[in-house]
Amino acid sequence: MEGRLERQLQFLIEIDKAKNVLRQSVLTDKSRRENDAEHSWHLAVMALVLHEYANEPVDLLRVIKMLLIHDLVEIDAGDTFAYDEAGRRDQKEREKAAAQRIFGLLPKDQAEELEALWQEFEERSTADARFAAALDRLHPILLNFYAQGVTWRKHGVSKEQVMARNRHIEEGSTALWELGKRVIDEAAARGYL
Amino acid sequence: MEGRLERQLQFLIEIDKAKNVLRQSVLTDKSRRENDAEHSWHLAVMALVLHEYANEPVDLLRVIKMLLIHDLVEIDAGDTFAYDEAGRRDQKEREKAAAQRIFGLLPKDQAEELEALWQEFEERSTADARFAAALDRLHPILLNFYAQGVTWRKHGVSKEQVMARNRHIEEGSTALWELGKRVIDEAAARGYL
Repeated sequence: MEGRLERQLQFLIEIDKAKNVLRQSVLTDKSRRENDAEHSWHLAVMALVLHEYANEPVDLLRVIKMLLIHDLVEIDAGDTFAYDEAGRRDQKEREKAAAQRIFGLLPKDQAEELEALWQEFEERSTADARFAAALDRLHPILLNFYAQGVTWRKHGVSKEQVMARNRHIEEGSTALWELGKRVIDEAAARGYL
Repeated sequence: MEGRLERQLQFLIEIDKAKNVLRQSVLTDKSRRENDAEHSWHLAVMALVLHEYANEPVDLLRVIKMLLIHDLVEIDAGDTFAYDEAGRRDQKEREKAAAQRIFGLLPKDQAEELEALWQEFEERSTADARFAAALDRLHPILLNFYAQGVTWRKHGVSKEQVMARNRHIEEGSTALWELGKRVIDEAAARGYL
């Protein structure tokens, strides 16, 4: 097999492991925790359906690319729960090393493209990244709400924590932050938070 | 909540069920069967990495859209194993009804767009659809190979069946069909088929 296709294949087989990286969120039917592959798929479909609500015009293909690959670093670095302050301290370093290893499996041009997209997403430095990051924050709020807040209750998360941690949804989409706030209010009213 | 966003949200919550639609393929580590959400995510990343091998120039965003939504009909119609001739008989009707119900949750413009994309994928009537369909066929071959052929062996699938059922990979990508044939040959040599 020629070198280029071989490297691409090696990357595609390696990322099968994302299906075993469990998140804190559970499915809406509460049957089990969600994994990174499922989460990334759901986000990509959210982008497809909701991109009209971005604050600034976005390049939908770039947004979807970011969402498809944004959590691959967790194959090495693991999932860090949004409200775990200790775990979040060395998260950046661990994820940077993971990005270099995992994207580095690809041919150089593709490794550079995907690592740059991942970095852009992390830094929320563009309209595309801000909208992608907004969806990434909105998604667990929706799942948690439809699962009657099991994850929030398990970890004793407060409404104030959820509001503070997710406020940057507004940078990507004012309309979706309005939705997020309504869902958070309703969750608090129902005792999920 | 305004009607349009409410419908979009209803669709996005409904498709959470794709995470519980199990396919015959197992993960490469053989720990469990893959579900439709994970499969669709993996295909979208494959498109991102492998689109240079399409026989004709493709619109990557359209290819990825098709791959993200192509299996949603299985929420109602279930997964039909590629080598189950009986189950495949009424598959088209069941899937058509499912497409109308599930995409029909969306606002009309989006319902029409996604149903048309799904139809195009099913019919392989364009270069985009032929390439997307090629990835959809190549993916289980790769997973099965790296899982030492457990699914093929479980169902007693022969090399001839795999060759016949997957030959249309070539319509989307000659290069990826060459890869597929090499993998199938190696699988047969190792006794996976």
